[in-house]
Amino acid sequence: MKLFTLNSNEPLASEIAEILGMPIGKSKVVRFSDGEVQIGIEESVRGDDIYIIQSTAQPVNDHVMELLIMIDALKRASARTINVVIPYYGYARQDRKARSREPITAKLMANLLEKAGIDRVITLDLHAPQIQGFFNVPVDQLLGIPILAEHYQQQQLEDVVVVAPATSGLRRARRMANILDVPIAFVDKREPEPNMPEVMNVVGSVEGKNVIIVDDMIDTAETIVQAASTLIENGVKDIYACGTHAVLSEPAVQKVEDSPIKELVVTNSILLPDEKNIAKMKQLSVAPLIADALMRIQQDQSVSELFD
Amino acid sequence: MKLFTLNSNEPLASEIAEILGMPIGKSKVVRFSDGEVQIGIEESVRGDDIYIIQSTAQPVNDHVMELLIMIDALKRASARTINVVIPYYGYARQDRKARSREPITAKLMANLLEKAGIDRVITLDLHAPQIQGFFNVPVDQLLGIPILAEHYQQQQLEDVVVVAPATSGLRRARRMANILDVPIAFVDKREPEPNMPEVMNVVGSVEGKNVIIVDDMIDTAETIVQAASTLIENGVKDIYACGTHAVLSEPAVQKVEDSPIKELVVTNSILLPDEKNIAKMKQLSVAPLIADALMRIQQDQSVSELFD
Amino acid sequence: MKLFTLNSNEPLASEIAEILGMPIGKSKVVRFSDGEVQIGIEESVRGDDIYIIQSTAQPVNDHVMELLIMIDALKRASARTINVVIPYYGYARQDRKARSREPITAKLMANLLEKAGIDRVITLDLHAPQIQGFFNVPVDQLLGIPILAEHYQQQQLEDVVVVAPATSGLRRARRMANILDVPIAFVDKREPEPNMPEVMNVVGSVEGKNVIIVDDMIDTAETIVQAASTLIENGVKDIYACGTHAVLSEPAVQKVEDSPIKELVVTNSILLPDEKNIAKMKQLSVAPLIADALMRIQQDQSVSELFD
Amino acid sequence: MKLFTLNSNEPLASEIAEILGMPIGKSKVVRFSDGEVQIGIEESVRGDDIYIIQSTAQPVNDHVMELLIMIDALKRASARTINVVIPYYGYARQDRKARSREPITAKLMANLLEKAGIDRVITLDLHAPQIQGFFNVPVDQLLGIPILAEHYQQQQLEDVVVVAPATSGLRRARRMANILDVPIAFVDKREPEPNMPEVMNVVGSVEGKNVIIVDDMIDTAETIVQAASTLIENGVKDIYACGTHAVLSEPAVQKVEDSPIKELVVTNSILLPDEKNIAKMKQLSVAPLIADALMRIQQDQSVSELFD
Amino acid sequence: MKLFTLNSNEPLASEIAEILGMPIGKSKVVRFSDGEVQIGIEESVRGDDIYIIQSTAQPVNDHVMELLIMIDALKRASARTINVVIPYYGYARQDRKARSREPITAKLMANLLEKAGIDRVITLDLHAPQIQGFFNVPVDQLLGIPILAEHYQQQQLEDVVVVAPATSGLRRARRMANILDVPIAFVDKREPEPNMPEVMNVVGSVEGKNVIIVDDMIDTAETIVQAASTLIENGVKDIYACGTHAVLSEPAVQKVEDSPIKELVVTNSILLPDEKNIAKMKQLSVAPLIADALMRIQQDQSVSELFD
Amino acid sequence: MKLFTLNSNEPLASEIAEILGMPIGKSKVVRFSDGEVQIGIEESVRGDDIYIIQSTAQPVNDHVMELLIMIDALKRASARTINVVIPYYGYARQDRKARSREPITAKLMANLLEKAGIDRVITLDLHAPQIQGFFNVPVDQLLGIPILAEHYQQQQLEDVVVVAPATSGLRRARRMANILDVPIAFVDKREPEPNMPEVMNVVGSVEGKNVIIVDDMIDTAETIVQAASTLIENGVKDIYACGTHAVLSEPAVQKVEDSPIKELVVTNSILLPDEKNIAKMKQLSVAPLIADALMRIQQDQSVSELFD
Repeated sequence: MKLFTLNSNEPLASEIAEILGMPIGKSKVVRFSDGEVQIGIEESVRGDDIYIIQSTAQPVNDHVMELLIMIDALKRASARTINVVIPYYGYARQDRKARSREPITAKLMANLLEKAGIDRVITLDLHAPQIQGFFNVPVDQLLGIPILAEHYQQQQLEDVVVVAPATSGLRRARRMANILDVPIAFVDKREPEPNMPEVMNVVGSVEGKNVIIVDDMIDTAETIVQAASTLIENGVKDIYACGTHAVLSEPAVQKVEDSPIKELVVTNSILLPDEKNIAKMKQLSVAPLIADALMRIQQDQSVSELFD
Repeated sequence: MKLFTLNSNEPLASEIAEILGMPIGKSKVVRFSDGEVQIGIEESVRGDDIYIIQSTAQPVNDHVMELLIMIDALKRASARTINVVIPYYGYARQDRKARSREPITAKLMANLLEKAGIDRVITLDLHAPQIQGFFNVPVDQLLGIPILAEHYQQQQLEDVVVVAPATSGLRRARRMANILDVPIAFVDKREPEPNMPEVMNVVGSVEGKNVIIVDDMIDTAETIVQAASTLIENGVKDIYACGTHAVLSEPAVQKVEDSPIKELVVTNSILLPDEKNIAKMKQLSVAPLIADALMRIQQDQSVSELFD
Repeated sequence: MKLFTLNSNEPLASEIAEILGMPIGKSKVVRFSDGEVQIGIEESVRGDDIYIIQSTAQPVNDHVMELLIMIDALKRASARTINVVIPYYGYARQDRKARSREPITAKLMANLLEKAGIDRVITLDLHAPQIQGFFNVPVDQLLGIPILAEHYQQQQLEDVVVVAPATSGLRRARRMANILDVPIAFVDKREPEPNMPEVMNVVGSVEGKNVIIVDDMIDTAETIVQAASTLIENGVKDIYACGTHAVLSEPAVQKVEDSPIKELVVTNSILLPDEKNIAKMKQLSVAPLIADALMRIQQDQSVSELFD
Repeated sequence: MKLFTLNSNEPLASEIAEILGMPIGKSKVVRFSDGEVQIGIEESVRGDDIYIIQSTAQPVNDHVMELLIMIDALKRASARTINVVIPYYGYARQDRKARSREPITAKLMANLLEKAGIDRVITLDLHAPQIQGFFNVPVDQLLGIPILAEHYQQQQLEDVVVVAPATSGLRRARRMANILDVPIAFVDKREPEPNMPEVMNVVGSVEGKNVIIVDDMIDTAETIVQAASTLIENGVKDIYACGTHAVLSEPAVQKVEDSPIKELVVTNSILLPDEKNIAKMKQLSVAPLIADALMRIQQDQSVSELFD
Repeated sequence: MKLFTLNSNEPLASEIAEILGMPIGKSKVVRFSDGEVQIGIEESVRGDDIYIIQSTAQPVNDHVMELLIMIDALKRASARTINVVIPYYGYARQDRKARSREPITAKLMANLLEKAGIDRVITLDLHAPQIQGFFNVPVDQLLGIPILAEHYQQQQLEDVVVVAPATSGLRRARRMANILDVPIAFVDKREPEPNMPEVMNVVGSVEGKNVIIVDDMIDTAETIVQAASTLIENGVKDIYACGTHAVLSEPAVQKVEDSPIKELVVTNSILLPDEKNIAKMKQLSVAPLIADALMRIQQDQSVSELFD
Repeated sequence: MKLFTLNSNEPLASEIAEILGMPIGKSKVVRFSDGEVQIGIEESVRGDDIYIIQSTAQPVNDHVMELLIMIDALKRASARTINVVIPYYGYARQDRKARSREPITAKLMANLLEKAGIDRVITLDLHAPQIQGFFNVPVDQLLGIPILAEHYQQQQLEDVVVVAPATSGLRRARRMANILDVPIAFVDKREPEPNMPEVMNVVGSVEGKNVIIVDDMIDTAETIVQAASTLIENGVKDIYACGTHAVLSEPAVQKVEDSPIKELVVTNSILLPDEKNIAKMKQLSVAPLIADALMRIQQDQSVSELFD
């Protein structure tokens, strides 16, 4: 078993390696002046079970291509199995044809990875769980909600309602509410007439409550910030928000800073640059969870305890 | 272009054929005494574009196998393209690994169909839209919600709230509510402590309203009947329910009959035997929608107008 | 190495497990009220070599689908290899295009199994040995004729002729006759003119002899019972019949009961329900043969001694 | 539609081309001094439906490789479809694992042809009809028996028995006998004890009859010549023999010449060099049959009339 | 037939479209704030033959991913064929394992394109002609050398020697020299001892000659500029340089500007931004060549005249 | 780990086996009288890592087919991995479409081998290194140049120039020259006008030098013999020639014998029949190199030291 990392999230890889008590394999990613990536594996991998840690976060195309090229290199270098750990699976929102003549890029990614030569995927909180079915190789999906929930259990908040910031997030909110044993609500967005401004409603009782907005990824933060405004109008007490994947495209951080959200909790599935690490943001590590999974996989133990 | 049907829903196939003004191709499905299926195509299909109409409804395994065997026969008989029209796509609920060591049978179905030799799928209201991504061939997903919504628009109900009977159906409810321009609510189910009875809550305002419960498939009817009871407790006026696919496993029909649901509207994506066709059930035809799609596909026109 | 069984022939699986001194893996096949099959593997299979025992006998479509779904579950649960033991391979008679526009369903089955993810097939007396070539994975075909022949050797019959009940079974009859060191004959069926009744002739000398009719599968029993009548007319002494696979579709058992056949010997490749187990039927077990093969395969020993 | 030929049987290709009234496409097969084959297609094939005529007869490996290389050239030259006409399909007798660790070369050939890029196979009298199932592309198998039978019908022989020269050829003999409306018999070979000489028996009545020995291919002619000797011993009148494929490996021709066989009828599926064309050999042409099939295929008509 | 372009080289696409007298298909490439690409095809492509024009030049990973995503969209939108025109094929220099554990990225690209769903590649001056063999679909490689040579023929230079700037470019230099009917030479680079500076030698007679340095791509321009210096030392007259692909990574343009090279001729296979278009650079258009090829391909004519 | 050999180069296989201290596996290649090859593996290979040694040298088609058939046999006999050692890879010169409608046979070979079932290729001095990229499985290319260079180092020749006999061999010459630390030159062939005789020139200084002509394969020897004549005209001292692969098609040996070449050094990658082993030919063994590679591969060690 050997662990390799690429450029998207080296600190997470290091943390995982440290927990597992094993070094990260020597490899080199060179970027030529014309932008082409060259990857060199600098130790023998012949007959080894390889785990590559790479989130396909921004710049997503470069990170995807780095991953595909490394898989090709490992395959041709006779690795026994190639396992990719993708804490954040990019392009996941393009998971169906929402309109005519759209691609299904999340499936394309799966096809490309399989064609390049992977034997298994380990990932975390897919945008839609059906993405597991885009692969023919085994996919172990780990769950971030319990890590986020544990954070709130330690805070011992009272009078809590879990809120999905849009109709699509109910299932995730239900899972968080189950752990915290509290009720749920959601923010409903509706466009009354074409080209008229959207109307936001809170469906469910939230008045006077502490609310936790739950999402899977915080990208522009538009969704949670709008939800927070609507919740304020509906008389809630404190607003907490959380999401597994801290995509945080510009100007998400500023928006969160300026919003009534009291605290935003995320994980380190995506590397958070220092300038984005504002005071009201809290980052929890998924390294222990991933390390545990890798150890179980390598020892042919069940990983089901990790997510049942 | 030639149209063929198998055993799951011949009346629907006939209706489509009539609209298209073309005969159904001659074929014979023989069931030997040991249960094996033999299929004979009784006219030349060499160089033809073939459309097979088959819902993979109960008995699902027989209907799937009939379909796969016919695809094999057509492929070996030199059909130019093989297009399968699956108004109801069975096994769709097994679309992800919900627990450890579960299959993803909806994906397996896609793999089997592709391996047998299909070139395209035309289907209706997939349980999860991501199932489109289980295929590498083009999938045209038609939508049943507009057909159901049109029914309610004609009834000119007032004071309506669209209700999702579970957290998973919000997106579908939102689409129906958009067409009818009404608010939404949902029924939330929660197990307060392990092994304690589930508690049902309505999230959203429904008191004194006419409610329309929307689901994609009505299987045991347990979900909509439970939702109806909870809605009654919350003081609603009349309860209407609808769903595209009338699976109606025993004893669904009796349950609906005994429930406070005033009317259940479904489509003919699944063949409804006479004994299930009770007075409070209304069946709308998807044949015009499917026929329109087939004509556009065969003439290389865009089908996007049908669902945008 | 882990052994699993599905629903077609649990007693055979248990017998094999007992001989191998290993338990049958925990799994659950649920049949939902709408007929869909759900399979749950209830113990870890990560990194294991799995052997699934399933005859694709009646109801063949359900048994095939159970098998495919379990293969999908095992593959996604990271089994190391998936080996299927199919004592009776259904749809084997559809092994060529006998007429225009027929499927080759025996090949379709092979394609479906390979697509689902098998690594190897262990089977018994295929209807045509060429079916091995329908697969790209290794196929170990075990032979039932020696087991059946041993039965007759123990009976010490005299003046025996082995008879093929149709022109297609000569090779099988020749193999049996080789072991017993006796001559062969066959029953020839001919339709002298279109739509005239078939004429049956015995080709070869059988008068005054004890005959053993040999077939690979006894389905409707029409073939062997007709052969028996013709043999009686040709003045044979006692008539014995045997076949590896006891398909026995209705009304095969009654027909055998009413026929001049003195004893019908079959194996337990297909589960024989009690009501079919009439006095003149004798069932021999293939469990020791299969168990021996599995052990050799798992220990990377040659299985050739089992069938050379 | 364009017709190409390679080196195995140019006269047959020319005959087919003449019947179809179309030229043979220009191409060149160069054999370098080191034995490597280079193929040049010397006219545009972009967008054309190509039919290549090549029997994989001796030297089989060269003929197979020529065919594969030409397929690759056509594929890369953007032919629309590549159809191979293989009047004699070599390696067909290696169609199953007869012993441990044997290849199934007939299947390997199918895999190689499909991998190289064929869209369809047209062939004649496969050694085993199951070889159709070795392919995933459509296979049209034409039948030589009716052509051979017609020859005997014209001769108006009396008192005829059709004889299979070995247990494996019964089905073919039955088909010939059906057309001629005569009885059948076969020659049974048995090795009474290990290492003892084989004993040949005729099973069925042949005394005083004119016999027609039917086989699919005449290779060393050992089988039919031995059968002829045995038949003589059993008091037959005249012996005729026929087979679709004239493999005629040395010293087959001499053996036939020296045998009691009065006439050997074959087809031109394999090119017969002049020195093998002895007086008692008669060659019938399959060109009209193949030409008819190609015309029907290209015009998307059914070919079923040709073999039903 | 429909033409589409992506972002890498719209001017070239427009020029081709104009020559062909057809519009460029409507499509939209959206770049989300997190860097993910979304592609929308804004007109029906059902049943059409699509040609996408995209050079995989810098930023190569984005351009590759755009191309793959568009292919996926077109495939799912039922395009009849998907043909990609890649005037500059990026990653072409990673065409073999030069050292242990290196990827073969040029092959990976081919695999990804084929997996996404292409039917054909049209490209120009591949770095190694063997890259054609990385594909299983047809590849039409057009040649830029004749366009460059024609430029020099018009200039009527005298006393010319064509020079390959490194040992790897001899074949290309030979082709140019053949057209101009002049001798060749090359610049040989050698590292006399490990870690010692390289020594450059001109092999062949160049003194007093006008030299044309020929390369396939001008990336950092290091190679041709070093070659120019060495040639100067060897007493050449004027130095001209040319290359099909103007990669021109920083600081290539400055280097060329400062070098003794009198004129650098390139093509527009890669879009040249204005700031790189210095006075001593001349750009020739490959649009007529590509347009001609597309027209021939679409009309099923031979493209061989274009490069024989 | 088990070693097998086929018919192309048994002495080399024996030498490798001896170095590895392991026997060659028992197998039998039968050639039937009709030219078909039958292969029998005569010991169990279940679960073994198999290495087959076979050069695809003349008769190339037979040797390729032997190899493919043996791979099929091993795959069906449940070998764990199938590794092919192809010291001389035939058809390597057909590695690109040099003219319209040519095949890329070197790629076809790769496709056939992969389809048959190989897991890895070990080979020596491919004609073009890009052929590695024709495979999706790992390819370990060993290098013959160092073995040939060592021979010249031992001879302590002085005043040496390495000469490529054609423009295509420069890279190989450069590698040899690097090891020997000497300059290079090449022979340039040019056809001044169509249908006029070719003119040969030496580019580079060779007068009074000892020259070593380096090629990868010596086929008809035309190239090196012509080069030698031209070199003589240019006043060289002694002429040595070498090439890894001794194809030596007729009348290569006579040509070399009659030429001014003083010594021709080759390896035993291709079996040299005694009559070709003339006095001025010297054969070096690649067995130690291959044996070393196999040992490292089987022990999961890096083979990079062998060629870096």
